[in-house]
Amino acid sequence: MKIDGTHYRSLWWDADARTLKIIDQRWLPHDFRVADVTTMQDFADAIYQMRVRGAPLIGATAAYGMARAMDEDPGDANMDAAWTFLEKTRPTAINLRWALDRCRAALRPLAPADRAAAALRLAHEIADEDVEINRRIGAHGLEIIREIAARKPAGEPVRLLTHCNAGWIATVDWGTATSPMYQAHDAGIPLHVWVDETRPRNQGALTAWELGSHGVAHNYITDNAGGHLMQHGMVDMVITGTDRTTRRGDVCNKIGTYLKALAAHDNGVPFYVALPSPTIDWTVSDGVAEIPIEERDGAEVSDIQGRTEDGGIGTVRVTPDGTGAGNPAFDVTPSRLVTGLITERGVCAATEEGLAELFPDLARKAG
Amino acid sequence: MKIDGTHYRSLWWDADARTLKIIDQRWLPHDFRVADVTTMQDFADAIYQMRVRGAPLIGATAAYGMARAMDEDPGDANMDAAWTFLEKTRPTAINLRWALDRCRAALRPLAPADRAAAALRLAHEIADEDVEINRRIGAHGLEIIREIAARKPAGEPVRLLTHCNAGWIATVDWGTATSPMYQAHDAGIPLHVWVDETRPRNQGALTAWELGSHGVAHNYITDNAGGHLMQHGMVDMVITGTDRTTRRGDVCNKIGTYLKALAAHDNGVPFYVALPSPTIDWTVSDGVAEIPIEERDGAEVSDIQGRTEDGGIGTVRVTPDGTGAGNPAFDVTPSRLVTGLITERGVCAATEEGLAELFPDLARKAG
Repeated sequence: MKIDGTHYRSLWWDADARTLKIIDQRWLPHDFRVADVTTMQDFADAIYQMRVRGAPLIGATAAYGMARAMDEDPGDANMDAAWTFLEKTRPTAINLRWALDRCRAALRPLAPADRAAAALRLAHEIADEDVEINRRIGAHGLEIIREIAARKPAGEPVRLLTHCNAGWIATVDWGTATSPMYQAHDAGIPLHVWVDETRPRNQGALTAWELGSHGVAHNYITDNAGGHLMQHGMVDMVITGTDRTTRRGDVCNKIGTYLKALAAHDNGVPFYVALPSPTIDWTVSDGVAEIPIEERDGAEVSDIQGRTEDGGIGTVRVTPDGTGAGNPAFDVTPSRLVTGLITERGVCAATEEGLAELFPDLARKAG
Repeated sequence: MKIDGTHYRSLWWDADARTLKIIDQRWLPHDFRVADVTTMQDFADAIYQMRVRGAPLIGATAAYGMARAMDEDPGDANMDAAWTFLEKTRPTAINLRWALDRCRAALRPLAPADRAAAALRLAHEIADEDVEINRRIGAHGLEIIREIAARKPAGEPVRLLTHCNAGWIATVDWGTATSPMYQAHDAGIPLHVWVDETRPRNQGALTAWELGSHGVAHNYITDNAGGHLMQHGMVDMVITGTDRTTRRGDVCNKIGTYLKALAAHDNGVPFYVALPSPTIDWTVSDGVAEIPIEERDGAEVSDIQGRTEDGGIGTVRVTPDGTGAGNPAFDVTPSRLVTGLITERGVCAATEEGLAELFPDLARKAG
């Protein structure tokens, strides 16, 4: 999407320099820094140090890493070594392994001399596919926003609320939850987005940076504020992303999503989840009972990064000495609280039937 | 309550030095600093700069301020001047005006020569009354905790969740929501308290400091985490304070309380509110419709104070340039989500009938 009028993707290939360019996300939202990712160590560092983040973006980065490896040495041994080297950087990110597997399966039948060029084409293809999936999600979500806008007095903005960063910088472009927002904005529909801070890691600041850079009106609010706003008719629709959705439509997403879904339900506000189909886990049905929730380091809660008074980037500790922090990273929103799922194939009910109707091929394969 | 084994109140009178001692709360939870409040300017600064905070504590501080004024000059003109000087420090805090009115009404009939001693006795009385009200709230809340403990396997802690700081440092002693916790702890009931961070001002850090200093087991969690914990049976009871409760039991409290009440209701977790009767507003019925919610400075959301890496106290800004923050300070939890109100006279249903039965005198006077 746009930064001050210039269109960017989260990564792009510099053919002249033969290097991958990324937006180094460690410094966002405070500094916008573009970095080169050239050597295999650069690729591993970019993923491990979260210079790139978000499952789709990690997958695409890994594919370019595989292309780099094939450029250095297209032999089978080096291909396997690159797979292992890149895969261990974020072992839980499902798209990382998926992208590496896809590259290796496509490259292995080829003659080594053809692998470098093919690997680069495949990386471009994986990146472009992600963009296209997200574009479609946005097109379907746009229709929902358009309907809400049609029911409002002319010029009055559609007020959306989102949680975490399911934005374009977590993907190659468009984002998932943000794709309908960008498309509605670009279509001239007046919008106002309430951006949940999303403690502990404050990914809301990334979403705010994205929206502001593209020119979408928004306000940053604490995670506590959304219920009050919904009680007072100040939210027309909630859209979030998801890390994993079960076959019956339970939604695992960043911690706190469930609370917003409860408030939306209590106030008759539509609550939508935007997702690419690879995040549907057809093997899991009851999300609350079956999905294990990662408990992360308490320092993420106690120590907060930001712009310091002297203009640098630093952290402050908010908790007293001796107080430990609990840090469950995700929660599960039961499907009964979800108005609909916005996918690349269209919008469906958050039910087993709804998902199976839209994805009969995937549902059958898993069943 | 106790700090490292020594019992403190939030303020106390030093008779030898003829000065009020307070815990200067601007530095909590990072530094524990006791300060003298001696001159009239000291009293105004203590309230205005939030060295003392919490409605009951502000009221008691103002009463000592009136005693100081009478010590300087017990004439009517100075009494009125002191009332005005102290009242303007926090014009919205209801207890401040209430305490000043009470002092002036009691002192005016007295001969000026008797006023200084009488004013000091009255300040002691106001402080002691607050302690006694909170002690009683705790005794009634303790019974609820005792019942929960009795249903659990021996030794397994009762797990409470609280939001904001309705603690002893917001009152003279005991606190409101924390009073049942301290009394249960002191009675030997094993407890574990989930302390909501309470963005934007992170008053959870104050609650964590209080609980840790008194020896109560606790964890600091983001405001997002409570719903997940309740879904997984990790919360036995929620207790919060309140800034204002309507005659039918709607509860206005720190922003985010409503979201916790929704999650408690969705998971069958009892949700209690602890309140001294002066916080019941008998003139208001429908809290969501009738209570105006203060929109505070966005800088409270964007800028976070804490211990810096070099050991000082500083702030970091978490939002990007150009992003504005929304900051509604309170929300209203509808009475249908409240299991019970814990008052100094006992526990009642959050209904007009429940409150009127416990407070027939106050309900009648207002009706």
